[in-house]
Amino acid sequence: MAWDFSTEPEFQEKLDWAATFVREEVEPIDLVWPAPMNYQPLTPERRKIVEPLKQAVRDQGLWAAHLGPELGGKGYGQLKLALLNEILGRSSWAPVIFGTQAPDTGNAEIIAHFGTPEQKRRYLEPLLAGEIFSCYSMTEPQAGADPAQFTTRAVRDGDHWVINGWKFFSSNARWAEFLIVMAVTNPEAGPYRGMSMFLLPRDTPGVEIVRNVGLMFEPAEDGSHALIHYDNVRVPADSLLGEEGGAFAVAQTRLGGGRVHHAMRTVGLAQRALDMLCERALSRQTKGSALADKQKVQEYVADSYAQLRQFRLFVLNVAWQIDQYNDYRRVRKDIAAIKALTPAVLHDIVQRAIQVHGALGVSNELPLAHMWVTAPVLGLADGPTEVHKVTVAREVLKGYRPSESLWPSEHIPTRLAEAKAKLELEVGSL
Amino acid sequence: MAWDFSTEPEFQEKLDWAATFVREEVEPIDLVWPAPMNYQPLTPERRKIVEPLKQAVRDQGLWAAHLGPELGGKGYGQLKLALLNEILGRSSWAPVIFGTQAPDTGNAEIIAHFGTPEQKRRYLEPLLAGEIFSCYSMTEPQAGADPAQFTTRAVRDGDHWVINGWKFFSSNARWAEFLIVMAVTNPEAGPYRGMSMFLLPRDTPGVEIVRNVGLMFEPAEDGSHALIHYDNVRVPADSLLGEEGGAFAVAQTRLGGGRVHHAMRTVGLAQRALDMLCERALSRQTKGSALADKQKVQEYVADSYAQLRQFRLFVLNVAWQIDQYNDYRRVRKDIAAIKALTPAVLHDIVQRAIQVHGALGVSNELPLAHMWVTAPVLGLADGPTEVHKVTVAREVLKGYRPSESLWPSEHIPTRLAEAKAKLELEVGSL
Amino acid sequence: MAWDFSTEPEFQEKLDWAATFVREEVEPIDLVWPAPMNYQPLTPERRKIVEPLKQAVRDQGLWAAHLGPELGGKGYGQLKLALLNEILGRSSWAPVIFGTQAPDTGNAEIIAHFGTPEQKRRYLEPLLAGEIFSCYSMTEPQAGADPAQFTTRAVRDGDHWVINGWKFFSSNARWAEFLIVMAVTNPEAGPYRGMSMFLLPRDTPGVEIVRNVGLMFEPAEDGSHALIHYDNVRVPADSLLGEEGGAFAVAQTRLGGGRVHHAMRTVGLAQRALDMLCERALSRQTKGSALADKQKVQEYVADSYAQLRQFRLFVLNVAWQIDQYNDYRRVRKDIAAIKALTPAVLHDIVQRAIQVHGALGVSNELPLAHMWVTAPVLGLADGPTEVHKVTVAREVLKGYRPSESLWPSEHIPTRLAEAKAKLELEVGSL
Amino acid sequence: MAWDFSTEPEFQEKLDWAATFVREEVEPIDLVWPAPMNYQPLTPERRKIVEPLKQAVRDQGLWAAHLGPELGGKGYGQLKLALLNEILGRSSWAPVIFGTQAPDTGNAEIIAHFGTPEQKRRYLEPLLAGEIFSCYSMTEPQAGADPAQFTTRAVRDGDHWVINGWKFFSSNARWAEFLIVMAVTNPEAGPYRGMSMFLLPRDTPGVEIVRNVGLMFEPAEDGSHALIHYDNVRVPADSLLGEEGGAFAVAQTRLGGGRVHHAMRTVGLAQRALDMLCERALSRQTKGSALADKQKVQEYVADSYAQLRQFRLFVLNVAWQIDQYNDYRRVRKDIAAIKALTPAVLHDIVQRAIQVHGALGVSNELPLAHMWVTAPVLGLADGPTEVHKVTVAREVLKGYRPSESLWPSEHIPTRLAEAKAKLELEVGSL
Repeated sequence: MAWDFSTEPEFQEKLDWAATFVREEVEPIDLVWPAPMNYQPLTPERRKIVEPLKQAVRDQGLWAAHLGPELGGKGYGQLKLALLNEILGRSSWAPVIFGTQAPDTGNAEIIAHFGTPEQKRRYLEPLLAGEIFSCYSMTEPQAGADPAQFTTRAVRDGDHWVINGWKFFSSNARWAEFLIVMAVTNPEAGPYRGMSMFLLPRDTPGVEIVRNVGLMFEPAEDGSHALIHYDNVRVPADSLLGEEGGAFAVAQTRLGGGRVHHAMRTVGLAQRALDMLCERALSRQTKGSALADKQKVQEYVADSYAQLRQFRLFVLNVAWQIDQYNDYRRVRKDIAAIKALTPAVLHDIVQRAIQVHGALGVSNELPLAHMWVTAPVLGLADGPTEVHKVTVAREVLKGYRPSESLWPSEHIPTRLAEAKAKLELEVGSL
Repeated sequence: MAWDFSTEPEFQEKLDWAATFVREEVEPIDLVWPAPMNYQPLTPERRKIVEPLKQAVRDQGLWAAHLGPELGGKGYGQLKLALLNEILGRSSWAPVIFGTQAPDTGNAEIIAHFGTPEQKRRYLEPLLAGEIFSCYSMTEPQAGADPAQFTTRAVRDGDHWVINGWKFFSSNARWAEFLIVMAVTNPEAGPYRGMSMFLLPRDTPGVEIVRNVGLMFEPAEDGSHALIHYDNVRVPADSLLGEEGGAFAVAQTRLGGGRVHHAMRTVGLAQRALDMLCERALSRQTKGSALADKQKVQEYVADSYAQLRQFRLFVLNVAWQIDQYNDYRRVRKDIAAIKALTPAVLHDIVQRAIQVHGALGVSNELPLAHMWVTAPVLGLADGPTEVHKVTVAREVLKGYRPSESLWPSEHIPTRLAEAKAKLELEVGSL
Repeated sequence: MAWDFSTEPEFQEKLDWAATFVREEVEPIDLVWPAPMNYQPLTPERRKIVEPLKQAVRDQGLWAAHLGPELGGKGYGQLKLALLNEILGRSSWAPVIFGTQAPDTGNAEIIAHFGTPEQKRRYLEPLLAGEIFSCYSMTEPQAGADPAQFTTRAVRDGDHWVINGWKFFSSNARWAEFLIVMAVTNPEAGPYRGMSMFLLPRDTPGVEIVRNVGLMFEPAEDGSHALIHYDNVRVPADSLLGEEGGAFAVAQTRLGGGRVHHAMRTVGLAQRALDMLCERALSRQTKGSALADKQKVQEYVADSYAQLRQFRLFVLNVAWQIDQYNDYRRVRKDIAAIKALTPAVLHDIVQRAIQVHGALGVSNELPLAHMWVTAPVLGLADGPTEVHKVTVAREVLKGYRPSESLWPSEHIPTRLAEAKAKLELEVGSL
Repeated sequence: MAWDFSTEPEFQEKLDWAATFVREEVEPIDLVWPAPMNYQPLTPERRKIVEPLKQAVRDQGLWAAHLGPELGGKGYGQLKLALLNEILGRSSWAPVIFGTQAPDTGNAEIIAHFGTPEQKRRYLEPLLAGEIFSCYSMTEPQAGADPAQFTTRAVRDGDHWVINGWKFFSSNARWAEFLIVMAVTNPEAGPYRGMSMFLLPRDTPGVEIVRNVGLMFEPAEDGSHALIHYDNVRVPADSLLGEEGGAFAVAQTRLGGGRVHHAMRTVGLAQRALDMLCERALSRQTKGSALADKQKVQEYVADSYAQLRQFRLFVLNVAWQIDQYNDYRRVRKDIAAIKALTPAVLHDIVQRAIQVHGALGVSNELPLAHMWVTAPVLGLADGPTEVHKVTVAREVLKGYRPSESLWPSEHIPTRLAEAKAKLELEVGSL
């Protein structure tokens, strides 16, 4: 056991295969069927292309490889997933083709952990097979990231629950086969004990998608992030996912992993932006020399490299910790830290890449446009940066105690007096 | 003559009228017919709405009011335009309705200055009337902001010129009635003397729009920034705008003003983002209090306010200088400085406004999406920030001389010796 | 009345005189008798040099010129003081020689406003004459900028008050003729009503300077910022400055002005750093060209120029507002804003100036060392930046109201529906 | 062999011992005999204290442990040194007591590598024993970091060399037993071949220390960074260190290691600042709660933690690379990257720590003052940040090639056409 920053050769071979495969086979699909088509059930035409690619991934033993064998994976763990996600994060379709896309793997994990056999049969199996998509319907329009303000209510009525309320930004709802809905079941118990999770088919009567809100770059009313009105949605009692009152624990489990995976994929996406920055710097001549010879462009390259290099090491370190400790709470501080860093790293590198591309950089003809909009999305998805920084600070501060006196423990006059006393004992008057 | 930071009451009344008018009458059009529809020739339906609004502006004496009376304006100058543009910059249609939109006013000014009577009759009059739109076709795909690399060529052939080459990001070409094209007419003479400007109808044979490139948020192949192939475009000799070889001077005149006007409008746009930030901070509750009570949100408000306040004062100062000196070269340093600041001010304030809006902030349901993409556009339009900073530095450094000795003129040991000598003369030994 | 960014020629002549005078006559003193000697009572040797300079300032009518005639000044107001302070701020002795140095002018103003005739005779007259120095003893070691935590207590005892407690960072106490001390006189009344100001000679028995704390660059135990133990300090009843319980109002009056004056002087100090940066850029050759030709150094120049230019305009604008409105509360927002900007402007420009000076920049042979340490001092003196930003935010937010609906007032779907309804009335179905 | 972020338990025990030892035994010396006393030959009084501490380090097998056994070390390599330096970097005396202080270990390494047996006997042995100090005299006052501008000249005269010229910022010259001087021996050969290194006793006739320049916080004319005039300094021919003309190679070897060691120690110093920040946040109450509860202070903690955590991983990664590859050129990019990051990490964390300490933070009563001045020193020592960023960029860009066409290789219209062609072959018309 000792510090090592290298990947074992056998796994490196897998990574090399994946890199070539994504570049040659998957990226063409990104172009022809751009996001959010990756989240739509396969048409026959797309299936003809996509299925053989999924099979190739399975043949390599890389399908959902971070999941345990009981979920059809290899149990590779988070560190290897991190290395793989650096490759998959460059592409919109690659996570779908490797069985690692959000939110479906997170949803799969919680069904695996908390679901009944019947729920697993009905929802988990086709989800793991990549045949269907899922939606995690938690945030509410008035509440943002604060579960204490959730008001969507599920009331028991005989053998059923009846759900009423509004959810916002429910990603992929329009293409999902089923929804995971968080609802208040006991208002007196407060947010940590009073909410429950429900699993229900998207086509349950009363599930009304009011608007398909889009991200910045998407045309109006054709987005993927639904505003949903749950209007007297009646579901059988066995629709509960986990225990009654247990939604908070389910949500925490799910979100921890999701934040790390976002960070891993962002390493890959930011690397792609850096690659574009460097190629452009070498390709473009202006005022008599290549951009690569301009000191400010050199600073863009150097700053981007250093920022990404450090971030990558931190993400890998966090993945390693999760594998080592198998305890999300122990890694909570560092998960929050990389979550807070993720949008900034992507933002800064993409901004520089845009700048060196000139007009083309702000056009719709490069992947940079999509990345530029992704950066602020990452600053809000799974909780705003500000909240994660508070978490980091609280965890860091647990390791300290206040000074016992009016002055800090490093106060020089105080310490000097002590030091003099100590040394005088040893050498006599100073 | 002395420092004064107030607006005379009569003009303030005009501004108040404009503010109400834009909010109540123009912003609905922004929503129903969003950009780039403001650059398309009016359909009968739109004309029915837009014409009366233009007339209302004329009735107030505010139509193209920065232009001289010979161009149909009031000769109000740049300071008053700056104050007005703070209002117009919040809206996409307002500049069209007030006769101040880029690139058309810039194009009008150079035709007024350099055009023949016939050119004025044919192009300037309908342009000033707001009946047609124009396109300034300068940048080339391989050249960016560096005119030395332009290769589009115009060759004299009897009574005609024949133009061949490629132009990139020619804004509004698809809806323009005419194009202003910069082309090399004498390759030996270099970029400052060897290029000429041409005025030609967009439908001239050989003008081929290869792709309508879009900005980040625009759908593929439906943008406003054309890649144009000039393929043996044959125009009569009197299509020259200004002298043969005089394109550089024309371009400089035009770009200086344009940069200032972008900055003025950005003051208004950034104020709109700050307004949204503040409203949201007061409206949103999380974790037991309004966002307005969170220290980090307070910092967002304070930093945005201070940044915008300072920028606005600088923009007004530059406008005042232009009015005072009537000499763009004398104001060149400060024009470049506000040009370099413009994208950063908008970027920073919009980023904070997005963040406090949560998921809604990164959606397509707020004007922030458009602003987020506008910020990097402003970092490249009319030249990249990096180039303008070099201009600022060169101009600032003209005011200094190198130190005459090995040490700086503020070198303490050197100066102390001199000071001692001086004081000793006065008081004796120190 | 309208926007004007120029100085009237007669006052510009005064400023030009002051600039030459400071450079030629005052700066040598800065070198020979460096700070904090400027705050020490004049030795005969120094008096021989300094008195004639003060007289020259008086002869120009510039002595304490911002003060009203009743205080021996010219009533020039804050805008003219701002212009003058840009010159004086470059020098440590210049404020002393022009009668404008902190904290003495602030202390003079409050004695003028709140003092009894006897207090004015005893303290104000020699202070205004520049013959003595004063100390404002407010902050306490456990309390920082939070008056609610002040515990220094004054208890009435017959014709006297008896003061007990500790004060920290009491600037210039060791050289002051008198102290202004803030003490709790009525603990029940809370900080805004329960504290009073006292005026007492520094040599009053019981005033014990425990340590002369220094700023960063000063040698241990030889600084200017005393930790004072008020140990049963007995002062006559007429030592009260202002009303019993009126300390908070006195303090607010004093601090508002002080913050603005710090900002004004910082404009001058930062300009000096920028001057050094520019001279060095032109003087130093490396790798085949002058630093002035390196793009990164050009960015340092451009960013510094733009930052300082904007800050200066804001400071002048605040000074103008104070003169216009004569109401500090109305200008409170902007005073807090420039207070928060002040340390950042100095920090950024000095950091760049250091960097281009190489090893010399981090040596003790340039004024940059002093400035580098001054920057964080300005971030804490008269309250930390974080607190002033909260003030700015609160004042800005007073101008806004929360949205009346769940969605922001700029919510596009909501507004689009309204806009369509409005326009349909006018043109029929859209 | 695979990713591992842990330290083997046996070495962790050594580190724990060192941490306790430095805190309890070494830091008192830092206080009583502050820097630069650590670089002065031991007085009998200091020797009485310091010698037993050095012996304790030797007893633990930690004396100069990064050096090979032939130099009295353990050959622990750079990774273990990095972990150790995180502890030693908190203290000014600890490097001296552990045999790892700059510039002496670097100087020792080059004498070991390039020195003659006689040079080793005379200089290396006492240096390794910690009995004497050394000075590396390279930079010149007019030349900064650019060796092409060095003019100090050594001319062969019979059995001697005669050295003439000026050197600047020669650290510790006043306390050094010997100097390593870089001088031009063949002006025609250019900087990479034409300069040689000389080893000479400090008391050689003609070595004139003109000024002992100080760092920012040091009193005038009592600093450690000498301006030296080499005035006809006559040294025997065997004073050459390495080959004639070989100075550049010697310098490069030495500087690479030095930069890494600065970074390692900075990890420890910045951690100390973070520790102070956290303790203060918990200790200080203001406006009704601890600083630790203020969101802005929480951001200071979180940002500092994340910045330092990432930097530390990068430094350890670089150390690991050096151990793995044993080839400085291969690690050049990353050495330059951490060199450029080093001052920024320290600056940012110290600035936040200062701010939460209020007036005390800018006083001379905390170690923060020294750190605040150290940050810009680290931005210039061993070359300015700007130069190292250029190095990073050049190395990064070596991994890329320019695009083969006018458009970037990620150009969507181009790639979309290719992707469509590829997929159409497979599924028919798209």
